[in-house]
Parts: sequence; structure tokens; C-alpha cells
Amino acid sequence: MPDPEQFQEFQEHSVAEFFKKNRQMLGYSGKIKSLTTVVHEYVTNLIDAVEEEEDNLPEAFVKIEELGPEHYKVIVEDNGPGIPEDYIGRAFGQMLAGTKFHRFMQQRGQQGIGAAGAVMFGQVTTGKPTKVITSQGDGEILECDLSIDVQENKATLDNKKTYSGEMKGTRIETEVKNVLYQKGRYGVDEYLRRTVLANPHLKLTYVDPEGKTIVYDRAVQDLPPKPKEAKPHPQGVTVDDLLGYAMQSNSQKIKSFLKNDFTRVSGKKAKEIQEKVSFDLNKRPGDLNWDEAEELVNTFDEIDFMRPPTDVLVPIGEERLKKAVEEQLEPEFKTVIERKPKAYRGGVPFVVEVALAYGGKAGNDNGEDEIEAMRFSNRVPLLFNKGSCAITKSVDSVDWDRYAVKENTPLTILVNFTSIHVPYIGAGKKAIADEEEIKKEIRLALMKAGRKLGNYLKGKRKKKQRLQKKKTFETYIPETAKSLADITGKDEEEIRKHLESVVKQRFSDIGEDED
Amino acid sequence: MPDPEQFQEFQEHSVAEFFKKNRQMLGYSGKIKSLTTVVHEYVTNLIDAVEEEEDNLPEAFVKIEELGPEHYKVIVEDNGPGIPEDYIGRAFGQMLAGTKFHRFMQQRGQQGIGAAGAVMFGQVTTGKPTKVITSQGDGEILECDLSIDVQENKATLDNKKTYSGEMKGTRIETEVKNVLYQKGRYGVDEYLRRTVLANPHLKLTYVDPEGKTIVYDRAVQDLPPKPKEAKPHPQGVTVDDLLGYAMQSNSQKIKSFLKNDFTRVSGKKAKEIQEKVSFDLNKRPGDLNWDEAEELVNTFDEIDFMRPPTDVLVPIGEERLKKAVEEQLEPEFKTVIERKPKAYRGGVPFVVEVALAYGGKAGNDNGEDEIEAMRFSNRVPLLFNKGSCAITKSVDSVDWDRYAVKENTPLTILVNFTSIHVPYIGAGKKAIADEEEIKKEIRLALMKAGRKLGNYLKGKRKKKQRLQKKKTFETYIPETAKSLADITGKDEEEIRKHLESVVKQRFSDIGEDED
Repeated sequence: MPDPEQFQEFQEHSVAEFFKKNRQMLGYSGKIKSLTTVVHEYVTNLIDAVEEEEDNLPEAFVKIEELGPEHYKVIVEDNGPGIPEDYIGRAFGQMLAGTKFHRFMQQRGQQGIGAAGAVMFGQVTTGKPTKVITSQGDGEILECDLSIDVQENKATLDNKKTYSGEMKGTRIETEVKNVLYQKGRYGVDEYLRRTVLANPHLKLTYVDPEGKTIVYDRAVQDLPPKPKEAKPHPQGVTVDDLLGYAMQSNSQKIKSFLKNDFTRVSGKKAKEIQEKVSFDLNKRPGDLNWDEAEELVNTFDEIDFMRPPTDVLVPIGEERLKKAVEEQLEPEFKTVIERKPKAYRGGVPFVVEVALAYGGKAGNDNGEDEIEAMRFSNRVPLLFNKGSCAITKSVDSVDWDRYAVKENTPLTILVNFTSIHVPYIGAGKKAIADEEEIKKEIRLALMKAGRKLGNYLKGKRKKKQRLQKKKTFETYIPETAKSLADITGKDEEEIRKHLESVVKQRFSDIGEDED
Repeated sequence: MPDPEQFQEFQEHSVAEFFKKNRQMLGYSGKIKSLTTVVHEYVTNLIDAVEEEEDNLPEAFVKIEELGPEHYKVIVEDNGPGIPEDYIGRAFGQMLAGTKFHRFMQQRGQQGIGAAGAVMFGQVTTGKPTKVITSQGDGEILECDLSIDVQENKATLDNKKTYSGEMKGTRIETEVKNVLYQKGRYGVDEYLRRTVLANPHLKLTYVDPEGKTIVYDRAVQDLPPKPKEAKPHPQGVTVDDLLGYAMQSNSQKIKSFLKNDFTRVSGKKAKEIQEKVSFDLNKRPGDLNWDEAEELVNTFDEIDFMRPPTDVLVPIGEERLKKAVEEQLEPEFKTVIERKPKAYRGGVPFVVEVALAYGGKAGNDNGEDEIEAMRFSNRVPLLFNKGSCAITKSVDSVDWDRYAVKENTPLTILVNFTSIHVPYIGAGKKAIADEEEIKKEIRLALMKAGRKLGNYLKGKRKKKQRLQKKKTFETYIPETAKSLADITGKDEEEIRKHLESVVKQRFSDIGEDED
């Protein structure tokens, strides 16, 4: 029987074709958002790349040039390790390729889609390749034009040139059209401002389309610790993953496989597991079948394991975040809360930190006092898809009124979610999925910080009220003194002085200067 | 120079691996949502498949069997064309493969990801393959077990059997774990109820986990027209797409390429284009360069083309939607508005239809009167990511108060968005992206329908007030008659009758039965 007509049209298409047609899924929808997304992808990539090296403080140069109406060039340069020629194509011109996907490690990027998406967006809006200039610091500079063969999801490098010169790092230049540069909440300026806030060890020089240069100096001079590559925690591993790990394991026995390939499985715990399962853990990991693996996963749930180790997670850190907030927001009051690491979906470790900044430049990015929530995941600012994000939902769930926060309180709420795998709601990585454990942790951190802020604001309000009271008393002193003098026949001046000293004593907690 | 350490870890991964790790992006997050997503993917696929055939009214069988705690089997069967053996793997076990992606045609599915995603979800939660039973109605039935090699993004078929029997269509059986069946807003029952509402030509038999069978009969007996495969409209085509089409064109000249490969480009329009561009449209399409293509696209914007033709879009239709709403919601009042086709992003045609149903079973799915908004795209119910959807944003933007709608008004708002390419916000196809043109059209349709509803509700309220007034008058008739009889000395009974007839006359618009 011949194939029915409709099946003759059967075709395969590449992941690059898919995201070209559905580029809104990567964040390329809306002119302002699209430009910010390009910058976001390159800057995210850049900081990850520099931090791969030991002892190298990241330094970034970002420039947006206006070439015509809705036509810009984005230039991003770093002081990272540079990229060997063989890897340029895969790093910037092929989707689902990279070093990050298979790692169990905290990084900004995690998919191997973003940078190639930015190159593709430039290509489909201008027809032009992206220029890559890179050097590993060995005196040799490589320059080439990179384009993506969308149907094949492969990069092509043209106009390759090698020349001598002093450079260490990578410079990317991408032309884009149908985009718009604008200041404000969703623009590049705000994206970079927030990047610096969450990465106080980054030095950033930014040249905007009007040619204005802003230099963000480092708020801290030392590198944050490098996150360690993690092993999965037994709680939260799925049966399918467990079998996958078992097949790849070099261990001779399941028992040693569990001890070697997972975190927090000691000899004692392995023994405890053996006592609970119906099969012998001395057999080979490769011989594990689905039912046995399922039995293991169910057994893991019955055992008390230690929490995931904390050195696989590197949040911004209390001191660094305080310094960054001071430097960038110059607030009147600030508080930083870092929670203990938890796990979501049973076993993926994460940690939440929250900063509240009140007054100064906080909550005031539009020139009007208001509450401003800044979302970050692994230190990357999240500007879009606010309503679908676990952070927004947590912020909205807090009764801020209890902490004396009103609508026009000049407050910046900063939340950074750190994890070895951020559950983004989409490939565009704009918002964190609505997981119960995550929302709970963020909420608890916000409430703890909120209480501190509330104490400050209530204290401030009380002081203000007392100051008001003092002023009222002082206003009536001359009149009162006069009346008392009339009644008692005593010296008015004397009475006035006495009354003044009484008021001063009674409000001794308020300094003269605050008067 | 050897490759720096970090590049040695460079790997490629398949789109299936990507979505396995990020399955929340396909809708597999949350136990209830995950089960509904499996049903959604198979049922969407099913109706598309049956409608590919001429003159075949779709009939579906859906069964959810509970096999254990959080462990179910999903069975979906159709009366479609059946699947030839060579295509089973690609249809259900390979992502980004299918007939739909490269077509410019209105369909429910459009990515070639969904069904394979459901098979993969079953596989990674239970370790079991999906059973496929299919026949093209030729007396031969094919049965096999389908699994996905996730690393390769390829299907494998095992336990293939062929036997004789009467069957035409395809049956899929997938076991899933870590999911939960629940009634309510996000469950399978509601998903199917809405599917039937938007597809009144579908007959659906549904067996729920308690073994209860619900048969949804067809509200209409004839098939909707089959959407025609569209040609792109010149307005809205990107430079990149135009070049892509030109490279693939069989036409000898650019002029004929424009006339043949686009809709609404007549000989006259082609001449108009030639007068505006700087190069000769008699050259070969394959010789078109980026700058020339860009000139063409800019020229298209200056020309008045006819709107996209309407036969490429098949909305539910006013009569069908009315019947479906009557059958399913039995409302006291209903109104259906179908707008004229428009285009978003310059050239992708779409059409919006809206139904408002008041009273009866409308707005009452939780047993409490309230406003309920049902979202559909190409007749597929959208249950999740409500807050990020253009439909929700449009519904929220309407001042319902003006149409006498209050919070507890038993109202169902149904919006169906029909397009040859729905701009979903994510690969899970749960919500429509926030495009201005789309929101505007939905809002206009809602307001037009709202005015009709408002007139009805205001009329109803007025009638109710008059009824109340009439009752008040009637209550006082005996007393008034007595008083008047006392004053005038006339017969009380006579006065009473006279008063009654006056009231009756004055409220003649209110029928006796409504009293």
C-alpha cells in the first residue's frame, strides 16, 4: 500500500530551524526586549567564560552602536581565556553544543542555546555574520566571520585571519535590526546595572548609543569562590537518571557506584540501603534493571541523608551583596539574608539570598519612589516574564504592610536564586518555574529581611513622631511661660528656660542636629 | 597550544536530551499538569490526523486507567488514516520531525515535538515504551512498542506484530508515573470538556479512572471546511525568509516568483513593485542578494495589498460555536462574535472569535457562579500559563462593569485564536505571546460581544425591577381599595378590580408566567 499523501511531506528539521521560526521562545519578541536579550546572552556567556579561569577577575566591555533606524551593532569583549579555533563554531554557532549541559554545576548558562541564538537573530535580521576576534594571550589573534547554517545547525567560519598582537579574551560584534534601544525597565542599561549589582567582582565599561561611557568599578576586589562540580544527591534522582548514571559508571558494584557517584552516600548509608532493598548491591551497576532502580529510589526516600553540600553553590554572599548594594544604591538602610541550602524536586540543591535596600537610590529608578523587585538566577538579571516567575509570586505573597512598607516606599527588593540547575519556564531563561520548595524559601527569606526593615521603618516613624511632638512642645513654651508668669508672678524668662530644659530632657534621645 | 581544559568537555546534545532535562518547558511540571499535558498532546495530534482525511468525522476514545499511586495508563484511540510502519517512529518517537513544521497552514500541532514529548515522559517516569496499534483499514493491524533513544533523538520499535483484523485508526497506550488525576480546572476532564466545546464535530468517549464513561456526542454533524495551505503574504515576510523562498523557487524571474509564491501579488502589484525598486525583477530569484531583498521588503510596506485570503483560516464558525455552546453550557443567553481576518507581525493571518454564555451551566464549573475564561488556539484548549497569555491580558483589559457584568455573574468567556502560526510563548504551547495586534483584535471582539450581553443583562435587570414594582403595587391594592371605598363610599370589590386592571395594563410587557 503506498504511503498516504500526508506522510509524503514528512520532514525533519533542526533545533536551529525550530528556534528561528519560534524566536519568541528565546526572548526575541518585541524590539526593546530583543536587543536586551542579545546583550544578556553575550554577557552571561562572558562572565561564565572568564570565571572558568583561575584567578582572573572578569572585565567586560559592552558597546551599542546605532547604525540606522532600528539598526544597531552590539559589541561585547571579555578578558577570558579566548577560544581555540576548533571551538568557535560550536561555542557561538551551534545550538545544543557546549560544555555546560552535561555538567552538574552552578553556571549562568546551562543550555548551549543562548549565544548561538543571538548570532542567529543578528543573521536573520541583517543577513550579516557575527565577527569573532579572540586570542588566548599567546601573541596570536584570530579573527573570523561566523554564520549559522540554520538547516544543519552548524557554524561556518569565513574570512579567517590570524595576526600578531597583544590580546587575551574574546570580542564579539553582531549587527541586529528590528530592535530598539531605550532606557527604562527593560532596556540594556538596566540589564547591565543589575548585572553589576549581582556581580560586584566584575568591572564593566559600557558605551551607550549616544556615545556616553559608564564605568562600573568593582565593589569587591577578590573573586568569589569557584563552584565545585556537584554529584547528584540521592534524594531527587529519578529512576531514569539513576539507570543512566549506572550504565556510565566505572564502579564494579552497585554499592561502590552509589558511594562514588552520589553525594552524601557513606559506607554506613550504603549498608542501610542494602538492608532495605530486596537485591544484592554487590552486582554490577550495568546489570541494574528498572524495577531494582525504582526500589532504590523509593528506598532513598526513607533514609535520612545529609543535606547537599554547600560548596557546590556559590551565592553572591552576605558581605559582597552588602557592598554591591551600598555601591550601587547608596541606601539609607539595607539588610541581607542568606538562607541555608535546600533542595527542590527532592535533590537539586539551591540557595536563596535576599537584600532589601531602603532610601538613597533604592526603589527610585524611574525618579519616583516605589517598590522595585530585582530578580536574579545564578547572578543573571531576569527582566522579563515577571508574572510567571517564582520570585515575583513569592514577593507578592508577602504582606509587606506588616513591615511598614507602603506603595510609595522607596524600596529595592533583590532576590538571587542560586542552583546547579535553574528550572526556567522556557528556553529564553527569563523566569523561574513555579516550584513549591523554591517559592517557600524565597518567601521565608523575604519575611526575615522584611522584619528587619520593619523594625527600622517603625523606629524611624516613631522617632519622627517624637520629633514632631518635641517641636510642638517647643512652639508653646513661650506662650506657656508667659501664662505661668502671669499666674505665679515669677520671672517669665526663668520659667521659659526651665520648660526648655524639661523638654530637652524628655526628648534626650533626639539629637540636636536632627531637630 | 593545547586546548584549554574547559574546552575538552565540549559536547553536543540532542533536542530530546534538552527537553528531557528541561521537561517543564514542554508542560511536564506539576503532577496534575503533567497528566493533562500527555492527554493534550495525543488528542491534539489525533484530531489533526483525522482531519487530514477527506470526509472523515473524527471520533476519539480516551481512557485513563489508575495502575497505582501516581501511576496511570493513558489510552487514546482515533479513527484516522492509520500510520504506515515507516513513519511510526518519526511521528511519535522523534522530536522536530513531522509534516507540520514546514507548512504554512492552520493546524493544531505545529512543531513536531508534542507527541514525542509524551512518549518520552512516559519512558523516563516508568521505563516502559509506548504501545502503538495502527491500521490503515486494509484488514492488517500493526502493533509495536515504541521507545526513544534520547541521546540520538531517534525512535526504536520493538515487539512488532502484524495480524488481521478490522480497524482503521491509531491507538496509543502510554504508562506514566509521578502524575495525579484530579477533577477541576487543570485536570483531564476539563481539558476534554473544552476540546469538545471547540470541536463540535468531534465525537468523544471518555473513561475516567473510576471507570465512569462520558460520551460527548457531536453538536454538529458535518465537517468544518479543511484549511487551505497558505502562501505567505508579502507584508510581514522577513528579508531572511524572502531570500529563503527565492532560493527554493522554481520561477525563472523574481517577478513571477513574487506572483507565484506569495498571496495577493497580482501582475499589477508586481508592476507597482518594479516601479519602486532599483533593480530589474526579470533576473533570477536565486540571484537576489540581501540588499535587494531588503529593498523588496521595504517596498512591500508602501503598497496596499489585499488582506490575506480568508479560506486559509477556518475558525469554529458562528453557527457551530453557537450550537456547541448550547449543547455544552445550556446558557440562558449567548452571543458569538467572529472578527474579520487580520495579520500580526505584518503578515501572519489570524482570526479571533469570541462567545459569551450567560446562565445555565455557564460560569459555573465549580458549583459557584463566577466568570470563567476559556482560552483556545486553533481549537486547542489552553489551560495553563494563564497570566502570560494574550487572551487573558485582553479579557482583563475590558471594563466588564460597563456591560453589567459583576464578579459573581455566571459567565463563560470563550476566545478562540485561529492562525496558520500561533506564536506560543514556549515549546509547551500553553499560552499565546503578547503581540499588540492580537490583543487588540481579541479586545474588540470581547467588547462587541460585551455590549450585546450588557443589553441583555440591563434589560433583564430592568424587567426584574419592573416586576418588583408590579408586585409592590399589587400588594397594596387591597388596602388602597379599602381606603378608597371608605372615602368614596363606592364598592371596595369594584375598586380593587379596577386597580388590578390598571396595574396589569401598566405592566403589560411582563407576562403572567413571569410573575
